[in-house]
Amino acid sequence: MRASRSGGVWRAVLLGPCPCGFLAGRRGASRGPGRRWDAPAGADELRGEPDRFGGVSVQLARLGALDRLDAASFRRGLQAAIQQWRSEGRIAVWLHIPILQSRFIAPAASLGFCFHHAESDSSTLTLWLGEGPSRLPGYATHQLGVAGAVFDENTRKILVVQDRNKLKNMWKFPGGLSEPGEDIGDTAVREVFEETGIKSEFKSLLSIRQQHASPGAFGKSDMYIICRLKPYSFTINFCQHECLRCEWMDLNDLIKTENTTPITSRVARLLLYGYREGFDKIDFTMEELPAVYTGLFYKLYHKKLPDNYRTMTGMN
Amino acid sequence: MRASRSGGVWRAVLLGPCPCGFLAGRRGASRGPGRRWDAPAGADELRGEPDRFGGVSVQLARLGALDRLDAASFRRGLQAAIQQWRSEGRIAVWLHIPILQSRFIAPAASLGFCFHHAESDSSTLTLWLGEGPSRLPGYATHQLGVAGAVFDENTRKILVVQDRNKLKNMWKFPGGLSEPGEDIGDTAVREVFEETGIKSEFKSLLSIRQQHASPGAFGKSDMYIICRLKPYSFTINFCQHECLRCEWMDLNDLIKTENTTPITSRVARLLLYGYREGFDKIDFTMEELPAVYTGLFYKLYHKKLPDNYRTMTGMN
Repeated sequence: MRASRSGGVWRAVLLGPCPCGFLAGRRGASRGPGRRWDAPAGADELRGEPDRFGGVSVQLARLGALDRLDAASFRRGLQAAIQQWRSEGRIAVWLHIPILQSRFIAPAASLGFCFHHAESDSSTLTLWLGEGPSRLPGYATHQLGVAGAVFDENTRKILVVQDRNKLKNMWKFPGGLSEPGEDIGDTAVREVFEETGIKSEFKSLLSIRQQHASPGAFGKSDMYIICRLKPYSFTINFCQHECLRCEWMDLNDLIKTENTTPITSRVARLLLYGYREGFDKIDFTMEELPAVYTGLFYKLYHKKLPDNYRTMTGMN
Repeated sequence: MRASRSGGVWRAVLLGPCPCGFLAGRRGASRGPGRRWDAPAGADELRGEPDRFGGVSVQLARLGALDRLDAASFRRGLQAAIQQWRSEGRIAVWLHIPILQSRFIAPAASLGFCFHHAESDSSTLTLWLGEGPSRLPGYATHQLGVAGAVFDENTRKILVVQDRNKLKNMWKFPGGLSEPGEDIGDTAVREVFEETGIKSEFKSLLSIRQQHASPGAFGKSDMYIICRLKPYSFTINFCQHECLRCEWMDLNDLIKTENTTPITSRVARLLLYGYREGFDKIDFTMEELPAVYTGLFYKLYHKKLPDNYRTMTGMN
């Protein structure tokens, strides 16, 4: 268990917009959110903004005169600022550094800062000042892969591919990694089209796989979701770079072949079960619902709920 | 659509251990994997290892005499090395930099490198040398939150909490962020115990929510899964820092109350449906299966498949 991820102070950052009571107490004792937080003399360049969770955030990009500041002066200023923030009861420092100002990273690291994350043209470092191990929230832990099981009910055929140059040429469903901000069903439809040329629409989620320390995930975890899709074009035009073969295969043949992955075989059987006894037996269907605080909509997937359960206001 | 995530060269890094044919061709023309890749004169400090996807990877931590190298010399050496790699047909450069050597980040950025990711005490930068937009795989895109719907079939009561100091004190299921490398069900059981003191065991997945640009996810997406758990302790001892209230509530009351979130209300109705007509109506159950290439096991969740479908070798 890493304390930084578990219950406590920063959980509220991730689960909603309000601080928990522990921090509200600290917040009450602080100068209040939004106000500039001036570092002491000797650290004139370093100003931070307190956050409502008891931390302070420094955006180097917003500080003037940064170009004149050398790494050693920065270190002295940061050291003095940390002392000041600590004396004020701040429990964490977030340091946001533009990539071209990265000469300030090593001096910060020598004072105990670590990378929290970095992307494109900036990095974020953190220093925990509170008691015990850090309770700061971590960064994204999962990549998301999505595949499409495109099933044609009229012909009982399913769309399958073989990847190029795998050690074993196994039949599987076309799929790939989700783009940032892309919905699960949209990834499935896009990847199926890019790999096979087949157009389709999203129907449901069929299975979810979680795998840790996945090859190629940069040490992170992998979530892999297979969706049921309904085709509305049928002429295959597959990507020669990615696929060795692509075909509409009778579902029965996919169930019978040993030349497939365990998860593909399993989902083929699920599809047969759904085809014979109703897809509601196997589907997690999708619905949009409003978020409580933001009013934004999110997508929710679960077993279809009979209408009388959706509308009921209670039971006896 | 970001080309870096979609079909093509680097997909194979993420979906399996083998390069796709496009790269195998390039690999054939290279010096072969594993061999040291020497930069030209003037860049003696910079050596890279070619990878089988047509890229080259430079580990600054493995290079000697790094302490003697100043940022300007590094930049000259890197520029010469890039020229060499480009002439050899390499399509990408990965640069791994220990945090205390971060003075080399800005010079690399001035040559076009960007952050791919950073964590703890090192960062990774990339430069795309291939044709068109970068096809390098991205970093993790999702944080994972998991909640536990702990339902006591004997009393028809469900465990609910109210978070401290939310704008609205709504009843919801206890839960929180997954630790790195933690299985979904383990997160649910751990979070329920930490928040409420109740011990439970994992039964199934009930719902999955995907939300983008979620507050507190550092610009990333949020996946939120609710699990069905079965309690085996019943005395509540809730975390005062996180929760305002915690109680065993009659499932009927949770369905009736307006003082709850839409997703909690929805899952309460699902539970009632499952309680009355069988939990197999609402569950995605879990099973471990072996990965094809690594032999490692992963966890797969889907609707329970009747035994005759699991064992069948074909149909008529």
